[in-house]
Amino acid sequence: MTASAPRDLTALFDPRSVAIIGASNDETKYGNWLSVQALRMPGTRTLHLVNRRGEPVLGRQTVKALTDVAEPVDLVAVAVPAAGFEEAVEDALAAGAKAIVGVTAGFAELGTEGRALQERIVKRVRDAGALLLGPNCLGVLDSTTELYLASNPMPTGGVALLSQSGNMALELSGFLAARGHGFSRFVSLGNQADLGVADVIRSCTRHPGTDVIAVYCEDFGDGRAFVAAAAEAAAAGKPVLLLTVGGSEASIRGAQSHTGALTSDSAVIAAACRAAGIHRVHSPRELADAAAALLSFGPTGVRRVGVVADGGGHAGVGSDIVEAAGLNVPEFDASVSDALRALLPPSAAVTNPVDLAGAGEQDITSFAKVLETTLSSEHLDAVLITGYFGGYGGYGDTLAAREIETAHEMARIAKAHGKPVVVHTMHHASEAAKVLAESGLPVFAAVEDAARTLAVFGDGKTPPPVPELAETADQPAESDNYWEARELFRAAGLSFPGAALVESADAAAEATRSIGYPVVLKAMGLLHKSDSGGVALGLADEDQLRAAVQDMRQRLSPPGFCVEAMADLSDGVELIVGVQSDPRFGPVAMVGLGGIFTEVLKDVAFALAPVDRATAREMLDGLRAAALLRGVRGRPPVDLDAAAAAIAAVTSVAAHHPEITELEVNPLLATPTGALGLDARIVLAP
Amino acid sequence: MTASAPRDLTALFDPRSVAIIGASNDETKYGNWLSVQALRMPGTRTLHLVNRRGEPVLGRQTVKALTDVAEPVDLVAVAVPAAGFEEAVEDALAAGAKAIVGVTAGFAELGTEGRALQERIVKRVRDAGALLLGPNCLGVLDSTTELYLASNPMPTGGVALLSQSGNMALELSGFLAARGHGFSRFVSLGNQADLGVADVIRSCTRHPGTDVIAVYCEDFGDGRAFVAAAAEAAAAGKPVLLLTVGGSEASIRGAQSHTGALTSDSAVIAAACRAAGIHRVHSPRELADAAAALLSFGPTGVRRVGVVADGGGHAGVGSDIVEAAGLNVPEFDASVSDALRALLPPSAAVTNPVDLAGAGEQDITSFAKVLETTLSSEHLDAVLITGYFGGYGGYGDTLAAREIETAHEMARIAKAHGKPVVVHTMHHASEAAKVLAESGLPVFAAVEDAARTLAVFGDGKTPPPVPELAETADQPAESDNYWEARELFRAAGLSFPGAALVESADAAAEATRSIGYPVVLKAMGLLHKSDSGGVALGLADEDQLRAAVQDMRQRLSPPGFCVEAMADLSDGVELIVGVQSDPRFGPVAMVGLGGIFTEVLKDVAFALAPVDRATAREMLDGLRAAALLRGVRGRPPVDLDAAAAAIAAVTSVAAHHPEITELEVNPLLATPTGALGLDARIVLAP
Repeated sequence: MTASAPRDLTALFDPRSVAIIGASNDETKYGNWLSVQALRMPGTRTLHLVNRRGEPVLGRQTVKALTDVAEPVDLVAVAVPAAGFEEAVEDALAAGAKAIVGVTAGFAELGTEGRALQERIVKRVRDAGALLLGPNCLGVLDSTTELYLASNPMPTGGVALLSQSGNMALELSGFLAARGHGFSRFVSLGNQADLGVADVIRSCTRHPGTDVIAVYCEDFGDGRAFVAAAAEAAAAGKPVLLLTVGGSEASIRGAQSHTGALTSDSAVIAAACRAAGIHRVHSPRELADAAAALLSFGPTGVRRVGVVADGGGHAGVGSDIVEAAGLNVPEFDASVSDALRALLPPSAAVTNPVDLAGAGEQDITSFAKVLETTLSSEHLDAVLITGYFGGYGGYGDTLAAREIETAHEMARIAKAHGKPVVVHTMHHASEAAKVLAESGLPVFAAVEDAARTLAVFGDGKTPPPVPELAETADQPAESDNYWEARELFRAAGLSFPGAALVESADAAAEATRSIGYPVVLKAMGLLHKSDSGGVALGLADEDQLRAAVQDMRQRLSPPGFCVEAMADLSDGVELIVGVQSDPRFGPVAMVGLGGIFTEVLKDVAFALAPVDRATAREMLDGLRAAALLRGVRGRPPVDLDAAAAAIAAVTSVAAHHPEITELEVNPLLATPTGALGLDARIVLAP
Repeated sequence: MTASAPRDLTALFDPRSVAIIGASNDETKYGNWLSVQALRMPGTRTLHLVNRRGEPVLGRQTVKALTDVAEPVDLVAVAVPAAGFEEAVEDALAAGAKAIVGVTAGFAELGTEGRALQERIVKRVRDAGALLLGPNCLGVLDSTTELYLASNPMPTGGVALLSQSGNMALELSGFLAARGHGFSRFVSLGNQADLGVADVIRSCTRHPGTDVIAVYCEDFGDGRAFVAAAAEAAAAGKPVLLLTVGGSEASIRGAQSHTGALTSDSAVIAAACRAAGIHRVHSPRELADAAAALLSFGPTGVRRVGVVADGGGHAGVGSDIVEAAGLNVPEFDASVSDALRALLPPSAAVTNPVDLAGAGEQDITSFAKVLETTLSSEHLDAVLITGYFGGYGGYGDTLAAREIETAHEMARIAKAHGKPVVVHTMHHASEAAKVLAESGLPVFAAVEDAARTLAVFGDGKTPPPVPELAETADQPAESDNYWEARELFRAAGLSFPGAALVESADAAAEATRSIGYPVVLKAMGLLHKSDSGGVALGLADEDQLRAAVQDMRQRLSPPGFCVEAMADLSDGVELIVGVQSDPRFGPVAMVGLGGIFTEVLKDVAFALAPVDRATAREMLDGLRAAALLRGVRGRPPVDLDAAAAAIAAVTSVAAHHPEITELEVNPLLATPTGALGLDARIVLAP
């Protein structure tokens, strides 16, 4: 799907002619709100209002039906009651519409019957070569083409907003306007019956007026297409920000009522965001702050932050908050501290955080000098200024003028260094603060908002390519039995102890001559072979092996046995590697240390499958118990690269076999010299 | 210390007469700022300005020296350069001052020399029966007595603010004023050379004008006194809020520069807050929001929150944010959902979160009805309203009037139920939102601020009594050897395997006749007996025992041996219990599962020692690996009450023996039927 050409959304974002079916004078109706906005469009774009009584709307002539319009219409917005929607769509298609915006609600979000109707309408639209936004959406707006077909006016700027909630869009609109920013496009996604979030992201990636793509989404539709589209956007320098739900059972209950959404587990969404290079936020304000910071500084990487405060309290609280946001406030190099010491009073703190300790009152330009010194350090990626700046002007006119000059100088310095600088000040409404904000240094009333904003830039590393999935397997698995699973993983490159598939005690004994004792005997054909006594460990000689075969045959009558070399567990660590299928994002890999670490401590990592070796290594390194793999208490470290390669091999099976819905190698024994699968399981699609 | 009478701070907060030494016309000097504020005090309080040149200050006569004032002066604020501070204090004491406010900086915060001078001055002040606030402080303010001796005016209200940072106080002042609140008292703590944060808390607890006590502190001085004072305040219905630093190495570096503060580890501060019932916040805005919420609703308990939104997006995002704040958004009882279903349109969500789904536009009183219905549920403690309220008025005058009526009705309903109701709305500046805010329902521009504010109330449970410490031991430990440590813990109630202290193989063999084989032999007098081969496990008979004695004697020449019964480890879980001494908060208990859980996973819990059984039980229950204690994978559960009792016993030794600076029982074997110390260690103060 990543290879298919993006859909052409020209008719949606830049139609030559537009019609609104359901135009109305009733101020409580969407058909009124849309019409009010549409009338703001320039006259070069033809607009037809359709009102079933044919009465003038907002002082403008209407037609009773779209069929009364002689010329073709590119885009038709439909805001009639649900009962009339299908007919309106037919009229639109008859009028040659290439894009239909379905504002009308009452379809899939209400249940099965509505979903069936919705699917029928989508098929009609697609067969006619048109596209449908919605239904159950609030319209579309493109400020670069002056297309106004949303329920509200919105501020203009560089953010494309794709939203499944109208009120979220309105709230974000307010937050963004307060930060001096706005929208290049607003697309209300609605039920995503035809156009999905991925389609719109791909269009916005190619849209010159868009610099940042902001998404509020409850249902990701084709999750892999979403990930691929977001990764492509990020690679094109247009970062994607995501606000979503699913972090609690309550929000999942809510989303199901809201759009009938199929939500994914929050850990799966996190894995998808990592794969796509998406920055996930948790509230509209955070989304606005993140978008504003990206618009100011562009995509970059921030890990190491200098904290510059005028006051010890702000220095300390600011540092704690930056570190709590996942960033680092490292001690300065001696050269930086020395330079700061030369600039500041003796009581100043100069090791990071910086406390100006009265230097602001004595010489307001200290702010600019300290900023220059800290930004010059190659070991710092960004600076947070926190405290009182903007308040010094209150001490007199001279200081006020110098403070404003200093603000300009600070903005100049930040721009020259090309590193993010964010400012928190209790005087956020001051003239000096306004100068900073207008020069592109974001100013915050609360230090935690400033600090969190620095975390939006990420570490600046390019994420690995989005993992791809096969549509069908070259050689689909035909059975889910243990031997078949084992052979599949072996073919993918995973090592297993030497083994043989046998049907008799004689054959087992014969096979073991080359395998070597001790061996393990496993009965085939059992779902939970270990629980049902179908596994005999540590068989030391032929007598024990034959006795085990006889015992299992009597109890379990298995169709056969697997006899395999008994692995030496003494220096190894048992891992678990599994892949399960998410309804939206497809196969998701899970890696953890087995046993209590997975079951009790839930110490597991997730990533979209297949994972490459580097990602597998990161998953292992990120486990809370990772130190156990690196050797503790006198144990040797395991071969992490071999373990990572084994994980990659296991997950590649999921990528190449869409007929497998679930698979697991548990335990995967990681040893100082390699990795060995000790059990294997696959589940085939029914 | 908890038993001592609180210090009388009348002279600090309600002096009959005040003098400022260092009054000045120079607008860049504290002596000017203090004087400006002091002149606002009512004429019933005598004010003397002291200026060394005797020139009029702010149009008011001054004296050249305090000795020129004939009458006694209750409170003297000193704002002269450091070199003149000691003389000014002498003048103040000579004038009969009972309270001195040391604004002058340049003492302990600059190093050893300044600290010595500071200590000398404090001794003089105390010997004279007076008290000293600061030095290095910004003054004091009591709005209930109209005492204005701080550098800035501050809004009036019910919050007593005790702060070690002037700028933090100013910032909080702004946030609180914006929420319609202010200060009963502001006390700038400075270096806390004499008066400490605990003294001031105790005074504010008895202050009728104070409802909430807010603390910004870097150095807690006598940490146990702080905890006791805060617990007493909370018990008196005056909750204590704390903003502090120490969450990062950077902030610790910063605090050391700022006030020369001795900071405590963030986990220790968290333990102190739990013991004291303090709610810890992480930023000035959070502090203001928390204070405002407590002023609105008083102390109460909040765990289960109803989320009411007008929009599916807000319902979902709001729910996720409430849960991320540590609260619960439980599914409603069927009766609540049924009642809501009867009130709302068919597309509404009625299971928690509530999505009004257009009911707001149709009938704005739906907000009041839904609030009444949700607050009536005995299974909900609070309600968050999130979304668009306040914006409906934009649709026309009739709706605007009804929205305001609805706001009044919502405030009335909230008050009637006595449960916290917080409101987030994108229309936070609307008339309806103002009605809510003025009626005591906090209104927020960002939903995360609203949600976090609900977490300030805690679970409403009364914390256990603050653990007390003995000043001296009845029978101090005389040696830190293993046997003595073991006997101390045994005397405190901890069980150990049967054991004997012996000096020869014969005595060991004799003692083992009553102990029974197998036994463990431990060499006495070794710091790390296990590492140095001083422990022999599982000695099965007399021959093995004698051989072990002989071997250790040859290698280690110990002064004696401990022979003890070998515990059966098979059904037990090894815990570690230790106590270490924090320089501010004294003995702090640490509990964890031993081995990798403590060393690798850092899965440990902290509490101020001694811990009672209930607290010990909570510590165990709160471990990430707690499930291992409750029995997993076919293992029986351990006796958690016995384990808790053992932990309480171990930590009680720390409480009764101040001469012990560190102690540990590791492992403490928790079994299905009890708990057994398998090793013990104490460290005596040098």
